[in-house]
Amino acid sequence: MMSTRLEACRLAIGPLDTQAMAAAAQRWDNLTKPRGSLGRLEALASQVAGITGMARPRLTERLVFVLAGDHAVTAEGVSAYPSAVTAQMVYNFVRGGAAINVLARQAGARVIVADMGVDAEFPALPGLVSRKIRRGTSNFLYQPAMTPTEALACVEHGIALAEAEVKDRTTWVVTGDMGIGNTTASSAIVAAMTGAAVEAVTGRGTGVLEPALGHKAAVIRRALERHRPNADDPLGVLAKVGGFEIGGLAGVILGAAAHRCPVLLDGLIATAAALLAVGMVPAVRHYLIAGHRSVEPGHSVALQALSLAPVLELDMRLGEGTGGVLALTIVEAACRLLDEMATFEEAGVATNESPSTPVAEGTS
Amino acid sequence: MMSTRLEACRLAIGPLDTQAMAAAAQRWDNLTKPRGSLGRLEALASQVAGITGMARPRLTERLVFVLAGDHAVTAEGVSAYPSAVTAQMVYNFVRGGAAINVLARQAGARVIVADMGVDAEFPALPGLVSRKIRRGTSNFLYQPAMTPTEALACVEHGIALAEAEVKDRTTWVVTGDMGIGNTTASSAIVAAMTGAAVEAVTGRGTGVLEPALGHKAAVIRRALERHRPNADDPLGVLAKVGGFEIGGLAGVILGAAAHRCPVLLDGLIATAAALLAVGMVPAVRHYLIAGHRSVEPGHSVALQALSLAPVLELDMRLGEGTGGVLALTIVEAACRLLDEMATFEEAGVATNESPSTPVAEGTS
Repeated sequence: MMSTRLEACRLAIGPLDTQAMAAAAQRWDNLTKPRGSLGRLEALASQVAGITGMARPRLTERLVFVLAGDHAVTAEGVSAYPSAVTAQMVYNFVRGGAAINVLARQAGARVIVADMGVDAEFPALPGLVSRKIRRGTSNFLYQPAMTPTEALACVEHGIALAEAEVKDRTTWVVTGDMGIGNTTASSAIVAAMTGAAVEAVTGRGTGVLEPALGHKAAVIRRALERHRPNADDPLGVLAKVGGFEIGGLAGVILGAAAHRCPVLLDGLIATAAALLAVGMVPAVRHYLIAGHRSVEPGHSVALQALSLAPVLELDMRLGEGTGGVLALTIVEAACRLLDEMATFEEAGVATNESPSTPVAEGTS
Repeated sequence: MMSTRLEACRLAIGPLDTQAMAAAAQRWDNLTKPRGSLGRLEALASQVAGITGMARPRLTERLVFVLAGDHAVTAEGVSAYPSAVTAQMVYNFVRGGAAINVLARQAGARVIVADMGVDAEFPALPGLVSRKIRRGTSNFLYQPAMTPTEALACVEHGIALAEAEVKDRTTWVVTGDMGIGNTTASSAIVAAMTGAAVEAVTGRGTGVLEPALGHKAAVIRRALERHRPNADDPLGVLAKVGGFEIGGLAGVILGAAAHRCPVLLDGLIATAAALLAVGMVPAVRHYLIAGHRSVEPGHSVALQALSLAPVLELDMRLGEGTGGVLALTIVEAACRLLDEMATFEEAGVATNESPSTPVAEGTS
């Protein structure tokens, strides 16, 4: 079941570089500020030091992978929007009109849009990569979402997408998604991978209200009862209740980490993909940064299972990578501070350990 | 007691523009995303619409005001750092080596450093504005921090600083501070203005540990018992237990709002200044955006008193405007989304109210 590409990731993804992390931590304590006063920014930059192996990491490339796919389970009335919106939004991404395009422009990031399995045939579109498995998953209320071969294929496609685009130790990778119905699949994955109750991981998605919300939970519960996915077999979980774009994102995460690039996760869908990726290659967890906390309840469950604390909490629930790319600016700020701030010695500032350091009088 | 400049602010600061806010809210609902799915970003951009009177606000100038002052109460051992660090950090700001300089460069913001009352004589320094009241406040454990005349003067200087630099409806204003001992003064102000218990508003500042922390609280409590500041007289509170840079920031806030510019508050010191500003001119509250939540307990008390929810929570406690300028990127992203995203109609995307909208097939 283990393929060449996935096996290569398993071998390539090692522990963080503790030497670079220690150097970063030491530099933080020499910079002109009270120790620890930059809070989580200090830990974030030190993590990036460990990921990249650079004591003062400054990554220069920024990529947002927006993977799209459809879900036949939408036939059960689990979403507030029709499946056709997935394809419509792919056009919107390619034209630059979606939220992720706006945020990527601000952040200086490039958006890579990939069709992993949208239920539409696209003409050749500049800016759209085709990695289509097929036109949408099967309805997992009645049958597995995909075959085991398809599950492996979408993960492999994701790895290949990342490997084609990232540069070793140089690229910020943000995970994004589009797929009407994919909060249903993602909630099912989170329940399967964490053992959490379906009610605790099921939310409104794009905006379903009661009684549709209760129905959505019932669909997930019945699917889990039917397929009995096993957390020890993440590819099996993906095949039974997943989605093509979710498997693709698991692959993007693995491919990025294999090249020692940090991965900024977006919301529920990306974090469900991360649970699968960590299930396949546990060491990948240390390469993950949670961009934000979505209002989807399953997202908090997934973050907790991964021991990830989100950078932002802005009550968002859009997907597309929006929360990930917003957080990128914060994490880049952390790295810039570590790199550019003056040390106590450079600035002639007294530390609380050396209150007698003289005032610097010169200016430069 | 009411001066010309302060009185002019009182007259100039009006309610938010509800027409611009309604137009912004309507546009949010027409953009290609589920309604409300951008969470707090939607409310933030709508607030900026109300502040500036522009339905699609895009502010082009970014200023961080870093006001510095010293505090004779440091003689009581309330800080982990010596007072000399205030002046040393002013040199660091002017040279561009401090955290706020790094973050301002990333955000495209200009840093304006003003000496409101540092206990040092500076040579003429490019980039340093002198608005010095005197070399540090008096020790408010024994006497008022400043005279009523000085209190009014530092607020007026702050208003003048803002008015010299901001452009109507065009400038993001971030408040920053530097002053060893100023968490002690700010905690005293928060207690005086909110009625909160001293223990609930006193924190470690730059890093005091027990028993110094208990001593810091005792100093604040004794000062409040001695001076009995009255929340209905914010200039009196400033005079009794404040600081020159804190009064200056209150003025910057008022001056910015008078020109319909949004103000991003940093941590405890800036928010203590905001409590004073709102005490002087209640309408200014609507012009405030809380950039982050500091770990200082008094900051949360002040935010709650102002009914402000912070944009970021990153366990920071540095000051200088660092939390404010980090949040600026998020608030600017919100405005950019409101302005640049495609509408459902422009993108040919179905809404959940109109599921039959045809798929757009063209590309541009």
